[in-house]
Amino acid sequence: MSTIGKFRVIKPEIRVLGVDDGIFKPHTKGFVPVVGVVFRGGYWLDGVMHVKVRIDGFEATRKIASMIMSSPHYKQLRVIMLNGVTIAGFNVVDIKKLSLDTGLPVITVTRDKPNFDEIHNALKKLPRSEERWKAILNAGELYEVSLHGGKSKIYMQISGISTEDARKILQLTSTRSYIPEALRVAHLIASGLSTI
Amino acid sequence: MSTIGKFRVIKPEIRVLGVDDGIFKPHTKGFVPVVGVVFRGGYWLDGVMHVKVRIDGFEATRKIASMIMSSPHYKQLRVIMLNGVTIAGFNVVDIKKLSLDTGLPVITVTRDKPNFDEIHNALKKLPRSEERWKAILNAGELYEVSLHGGKSKIYMQISGISTEDARKILQLTSTRSYIPEALRVAHLIASGLSTI
Repeated sequence: MSTIGKFRVIKPEIRVLGVDDGIFKPHTKGFVPVVGVVFRGGYWLDGVMHVKVRIDGFEATRKIASMIMSSPHYKQLRVIMLNGVTIAGFNVVDIKKLSLDTGLPVITVTRDKPNFDEIHNALKKLPRSEERWKAILNAGELYEVSLHGGKSKIYMQISGISTEDARKILQLTSTRSYIPEALRVAHLIASGLSTI
Repeated sequence: MSTIGKFRVIKPEIRVLGVDDGIFKPHTKGFVPVVGVVFRGGYWLDGVMHVKVRIDGFEATRKIASMIMSSPHYKQLRVIMLNGVTIAGFNVVDIKKLSLDTGLPVITVTRDKPNFDEIHNALKKLPRSEERWKAILNAGELYEVSLHGGKSKIYMQISGISTEDARKILQLTSTRSYIPEALRVAHLIASGLSTI
């Protein structure tokens, strides 16, 4: 079972990592760039890391954990944020395992409410579909989070952090859009890298 | 001769591109990632582009021009900024040519005053050294620019822009350090990509 850390205080300059993948043709083979962006709170970009992950593969959790733990920023990081639990297609990130391996809380964020029935059906076409489904279920309950004084809402799943702390961190770091700045910028970088 | 455009007004959200190269072993062969980061003024990252440039090669000017002109951000851009005129070793960017080809002003920025005698000597070990030297001279006069109310200073060379406008743009966009935010972030991304 994963431990739920409790933040004594959430500093405005808390170091957060936003992780997102690049663009690729679905149902092809190969690797996708995955970019991690270190932000101090919602404003200052402090560093960038990256790794390549196999489309519809199984190693996203391990690769992302290893990218983070081998980074010079690792010791400063307080929380990992993901843009949903699937990366490079249906390479599912098991956020419970990611949190345990790195010793850091994990928050996944999606703008739209995920349709789990649709995901479950899509998975069935892939090898080891039940393993993937189990990793998705491991992300636990889906919470709605209200941002910008109720003007926008997003959905989160969490591991190793209380809902209250996770909500506060999302509200603090979503400075320029409806998602945390680290995730917005990780998306821009990963997309910019995919166009070679 | 290049035309010097005149800004009627420099908006706080002026779209600037910061270009920097990644890390590599000097005197090796191969390619280095070069990253372009689009910022609105000194705060908001709007996009990322990239290209690969040959170590100590001759095609940096052409490759960077083509990266910029094929980008969806091209029409919004108002100025290009470089971290010095050499990239990927001594692959010299001819800023006059870059400005003419893209139709955009170019500002190069260095924190330390470049030692041109040293550069000239280092060039002599490379093929077509006089061509490289000519491209460096094409960057024209070196200007000192005072930032943050005189607390720091940097050096610039310019093409297609007046010294007055270039100074204003550097002062406006150097929000978090002694160099424009677009260049600081381009450096972090390019370095983060080089560590594979």
